[in-house]
Amino acid sequence: MKKTVWYRKSGKEGDVVISTRIRLARNLLRFPFPDFASSEQKETILDMVSKSLASSDLKSVNLGKLEKRELLSMVECHRISPEFVEYTENRGLFTNEDETVSIMVNEEDHIRIQVMRSGLDLKDAYKEADKLDDLLESQLEYAFDKRLGYLPQCPTNLGTAMRASLMMHLPALQETGKIHLLSGTVSKLGLVIRGLYGEGSRAEGAVYQLSNQVTLGISEKEAIENLEGIASQIIREERNARKELCQNPVYEDRVWRSMGVLKTARLLSHEECSNLLSNLRIGVALGLLPDISMDTLCGLMCDIQPATIMTLCGKDLEANERDVKRAELVRERL
Amino acid sequence: MKKTVWYRKSGKEGDVVISTRIRLARNLLRFPFPDFASSEQKETILDMVSKSLASSDLKSVNLGKLEKRELLSMVECHRISPEFVEYTENRGLFTNEDETVSIMVNEEDHIRIQVMRSGLDLKDAYKEADKLDDLLESQLEYAFDKRLGYLPQCPTNLGTAMRASLMMHLPALQETGKIHLLSGTVSKLGLVIRGLYGEGSRAEGAVYQLSNQVTLGISEKEAIENLEGIASQIIREERNARKELCQNPVYEDRVWRSMGVLKTARLLSHEECSNLLSNLRIGVALGLLPDISMDTLCGLMCDIQPATIMTLCGKDLEANERDVKRAELVRERL
Repeated sequence: MKKTVWYRKSGKEGDVVISTRIRLARNLLRFPFPDFASSEQKETILDMVSKSLASSDLKSVNLGKLEKRELLSMVECHRISPEFVEYTENRGLFTNEDETVSIMVNEEDHIRIQVMRSGLDLKDAYKEADKLDDLLESQLEYAFDKRLGYLPQCPTNLGTAMRASLMMHLPALQETGKIHLLSGTVSKLGLVIRGLYGEGSRAEGAVYQLSNQVTLGISEKEAIENLEGIASQIIREERNARKELCQNPVYEDRVWRSMGVLKTARLLSHEECSNLLSNLRIGVALGLLPDISMDTLCGLMCDIQPATIMTLCGKDLEANERDVKRAELVRERL
Repeated sequence: MKKTVWYRKSGKEGDVVISTRIRLARNLLRFPFPDFASSEQKETILDMVSKSLASSDLKSVNLGKLEKRELLSMVECHRISPEFVEYTENRGLFTNEDETVSIMVNEEDHIRIQVMRSGLDLKDAYKEADKLDDLLESQLEYAFDKRLGYLPQCPTNLGTAMRASLMMHLPALQETGKIHLLSGTVSKLGLVIRGLYGEGSRAEGAVYQLSNQVTLGISEKEAIENLEGIASQIIREERNARKELCQNPVYEDRVWRSMGVLKTARLLSHEECSNLLSNLRIGVALGLLPDISMDTLCGLMCDIQPATIMTLCGKDLEANERDVKRAELVRERL
């Protein structure tokens, strides 16, 4: 068992907000974007970033030494982007001990600073990202335009080049269908909300990501305050919807049954397991299941994912073998 | 909690055979069949039977004092026939302390002697029925024809007028579809097998009734031996099918999940509960669930039925209230 990292514990407003992420995209002056840069140029960039981070507590991760499943597990735990693992040559990753910081080098942009926190913690996460940004900027020359702001490869990031997002658990808004209304409303306010796993109208495990869409003509502070304000409203609405749903004995029954199945099943697919854990989260949030902690559920939500299960087992597994291991893991923890 | 009666415990071959029933139909000479008899005639018959049973350990049940739910509960527990509770005027019921014997007066026939046993126990059940039959016959004049045998109202019972039946739990033969083949085979051997609950191809809780069809030109002894022989084959086939099914991890998973749901659910319909208990029976039979006894499951299978739940609660309940009480009862017992 690894030590408790941010993605295995719950934080502020943890009944609804699973985690916070701040991501800054930065590029170096006089270098082509990674997609157009030569191997030599990318190696130079990696070297420059590495030197700039020498005084920080970040350590370089030896990507070449990692198994594919370990890289994919880092994606599942939201430590790195899915695009980052498509290939690892001439790319770099710097991370700290508690895994809250990931600096990806030569992903879509030369530098992507990512800071994660359990629960709702936008200001603190931004503060840390900003500090790292300052450290790098004091030694590197960024591609920056006084009028436009930071110049990232993708024009939709132009300006602050900051993406702030919250991973939220919204089962009651999903159940009542209010999530669809919400989706229209937040887009008018410069935000976007989308199901984090699964396709179609129902997000697997009812996990949604709320993030800022606008990066131009707005300061980082304003963007974060805007996001925080709307998140507070959504949190309130989700809590009210939960209270209402729980008047219905069918809903309480579902929470209990979910626990029954999780505690006994010998085979659990990722999708079913996510949805059952989602039901348990509500049970814990509503005080129905005093013996289970939200930390346990956060850890499980992370660890039941395919590549993470395989990483914990230290070997690749077929889907049906994963279902067995997943059920074992869940029984062990609950 | 009532004392343990036959329908709340398991008996011989209890992994497959839930219970044994012997039923003898008898009518009195010089009286019309109940459907054609006057109230006075039926009262006279009831009186004659009552006197004939005076020396036995059977007690008369005051049917008029029972609530409808109590009568229906007796039907659910197979102590009396569904037809018997359609009305109770001029009808009588005699039963013993452990509830293994029910003598119904003025049901379809003047006298129906029924003896029940847990598990497979045809010979002993028949012996007891025969003894009671002798007791009555020593004092009453039966309608009997030397060539045809006993003369019951329904000609299909002509001859021995004996119906011997076994309530069997056949989930594996149901699961593998072999039950349909079996149905054709046994009918050629003078027996019939049918789902005891629910309509269509799947019997609720996988409970089937195997009984003799032929009553003419065969002795009671032969009929019972025939039934017993075929039952042994079915028991063997069911056990083999179970062993085979349990090679499949999905099946074991289902047993465990069923326990998880039964131990936690807050709402349980009769149909779902029957099917989950059916899965648990297999788990117990295969030694997967050492903490649960077959007696507990026999008791539950009986007690979760609608009228029996209401009888245990001492009041009538709506369907949704029964679902709550049923879930409570199951959690309490498991």
